[in-house]
Amino acid sequence: MSAALPVPSTISFLTDYGLADEFVGVCRSVIRQLSPNAHVIDVSHDIAAHDVRAGSLTLVRAIQYLADGVVLAIVDPGVGTARRALAVEAGPMVFVGPDNGLLAPAVAMLGGARRAVSLTNEEYHLSAPGPTFAGRDIFAPVAAQLTNGVPLEAFGDEIDPAGLVPGVIPLTRQEADAVHAEVLWVDRFGNAQLNVDPDEIAHFGDTLTLEFASTARTGHRAETYAAIKTGSIGLVVDSYGMVSVCLDRRPASTDLGLAPGAPVVLRAAD
Amino acid sequence: MSAALPVPSTISFLTDYGLADEFVGVCRSVIRQLSPNAHVIDVSHDIAAHDVRAGSLTLVRAIQYLADGVVLAIVDPGVGTARRALAVEAGPMVFVGPDNGLLAPAVAMLGGARRAVSLTNEEYHLSAPGPTFAGRDIFAPVAAQLTNGVPLEAFGDEIDPAGLVPGVIPLTRQEADAVHAEVLWVDRFGNAQLNVDPDEIAHFGDTLTLEFASTARTGHRAETYAAIKTGSIGLVVDSYGMVSVCLDRRPASTDLGLAPGAPVVLRAAD
Amino acid sequence: MSAALPVPSTISFLTDYGLADEFVGVCRSVIRQLSPNAHVIDVSHDIAAHDVRAGSLTLVRAIQYLADGVVLAIVDPGVGTARRALAVEAGPMVFVGPDNGLLAPAVAMLGGARRAVSLTNEEYHLSAPGPTFAGRDIFAPVAAQLTNGVPLEAFGDEIDPAGLVPGVIPLTRQEADAVHAEVLWVDRFGNAQLNVDPDEIAHFGDTLTLEFASTARTGHRAETYAAIKTGSIGLVVDSYGMVSVCLDRRPASTDLGLAPGAPVVLRAAD
Repeated sequence: MSAALPVPSTISFLTDYGLADEFVGVCRSVIRQLSPNAHVIDVSHDIAAHDVRAGSLTLVRAIQYLADGVVLAIVDPGVGTARRALAVEAGPMVFVGPDNGLLAPAVAMLGGARRAVSLTNEEYHLSAPGPTFAGRDIFAPVAAQLTNGVPLEAFGDEIDPAGLVPGVIPLTRQEADAVHAEVLWVDRFGNAQLNVDPDEIAHFGDTLTLEFASTARTGHRAETYAAIKTGSIGLVVDSYGMVSVCLDRRPASTDLGLAPGAPVVLRAAD
Repeated sequence: MSAALPVPSTISFLTDYGLADEFVGVCRSVIRQLSPNAHVIDVSHDIAAHDVRAGSLTLVRAIQYLADGVVLAIVDPGVGTARRALAVEAGPMVFVGPDNGLLAPAVAMLGGARRAVSLTNEEYHLSAPGPTFAGRDIFAPVAAQLTNGVPLEAFGDEIDPAGLVPGVIPLTRQEADAVHAEVLWVDRFGNAQLNVDPDEIAHFGDTLTLEFASTARTGHRAETYAAIKTGSIGLVVDSYGMVSVCLDRRPASTDLGLAPGAPVVLRAAD
Repeated sequence: MSAALPVPSTISFLTDYGLADEFVGVCRSVIRQLSPNAHVIDVSHDIAAHDVRAGSLTLVRAIQYLADGVVLAIVDPGVGTARRALAVEAGPMVFVGPDNGLLAPAVAMLGGARRAVSLTNEEYHLSAPGPTFAGRDIFAPVAAQLTNGVPLEAFGDEIDPAGLVPGVIPLTRQEADAVHAEVLWVDRFGNAQLNVDPDEIAHFGDTLTLEFASTARTGHRAETYAAIKTGSIGLVVDSYGMVSVCLDRRPASTDLGLAPGAPVVLRAAD
């Protein structure tokens, strides 16, 4: 059994709740009352409703930049089913959220789960006037109590981390002369991040053929967004170290029809 | 006269300002300068512009979860008219906002106003370069000074709480074999909350007829969203204890045409 | 050389990052780790992507209300080009952001830059897995370290403030019987702020002719939004002291076709 982590003071908070309803504010209020000195940082609350994959990818991108402490992450289409509620210790973090694959890729990036508990101890939950609102009644209270120094094992039964629902980050498929990739994420600026490490396409040279949406286009590697010529498609290593399909000051996503999940095949240009 | 409340440290903040303009940030900056240790929690700033009813319903849903202290709430289509600016003490809260019904339902839920003042003392207002921006120049400064321990009566003339503008939460109309209801709120996930307490429809059994938008559909009670069969309409007691019209992982609002204010009649199925 | 400013504790934060991606949360997390007690206030993160002008106008409107300290402002279409990264001291503020005109109008409003440095000292930057994400890797760390008391000159080479890229706030053009103006900003409520000081049109009386979008309409001065008659166009001095084209509880922007940058000519009515 590993040494205990220091008592965390920061809660990094990600959901698909949006900011129009009061859900995020209510969870923050619950935290405030249970742990007045906890510091809550919003990672995003605009994950598309029920999009576990998008939430897990956002966590993976952010995880290495988050302050040590608690990661409270809720994208939970299975609320009310038998899916478990979890607290998972990995690296310098304790993740709190549903057992549906949302947490798994970020947990893996930190070296895997050391310990996990199923949040079965109702002593640490709020009672609800109707069915449980898991964020407000279970996940936020547990996150808050972690910042009060309540130990992981107090929140429920320890479970085998090997049994957690795995994540869903797609791998590329490599052929002799092609890499079959897909769009992981379209950012605010319309850049389309692929599931491609620069090393995977290094042997294709600086000019590549991109096949997507029944067309073939030519892409040019570029060091920066600004180095992409007008009207040309750029392949940029983005700030996360992944290959991204980009246009200069134009949204590649809408101009080229690249949405998350869209397949893209990369080859050396003829 | 009741005993004084403890000096509040939390300000729960709701507006229709949106987050694109600087309005919320400016109000937070004003608070920061007047009361550096106040803790501000955003409940929502995406209330539809001028939608007092939607703002009041959001406050009612949230109120029992908010930290004791100040509730700063601004949806204010009548700014510049004779509508009064208020501070109202109710339960463990002091509400600060316009006298247009926005605060009334939440105040009522806390047992009604004990005391109210009209914010006429300009000593606690900011001076404005143009006409007053009430959030920035009146409401935020008063909220901040409340967290500094300035007593309610310092902000202006005490007024009779009985004279405050009432709220606008619609009641159901009961007939022998029907409950005439309406949609109160559509949440992020498209669930349509009705103004119906589960007790009001308990005698209708587990399968009901719903009449709305010139059609009649069958609805089935369900314990959770996940228990709703695909293609079926669920009636779920939501996490606030109210009856909600829901589909499984689909937005009932857009699929069924249920917007806030839409009438819905519930009957026992034939 | 001026006396040193007190060590700032507040960071006012404006970007075009949006809130859907994790960018803002990651920058806040970086700040949290470098300077745990810094207090970050979001001014706006919904500046349109790459819209330096809109960002600079938002800063100008907000600046006099922001807490003394650091202004971290990033709208940066030229990332990856030779545009400099800056810290600029003006009034009680230190601005941190790109040298593209974004900061210039707010700096000017505070009396101009006293000192400026180019952020060339990489000791204060984060190292990136791919190309630099300037907000995360340069601007946020520098802002955080300013709140730790690191002096301006530590971040890089001092540069001549006279050489900073100027801002782009458009001036009116005055004719004998007309003021040629333009729309600076459309707010949440659809009010269209012009680049017109009330003094510039004082001699035109209370009823004016407005020419825009190939039409001429009559506008009436009004003290408040609520004083505008239904169906009538109001000219209101807004809460920033500027002339704004408004309708009562209707969005002038969409009803009249007034977008930021649209030209408007004001004359005395015949």
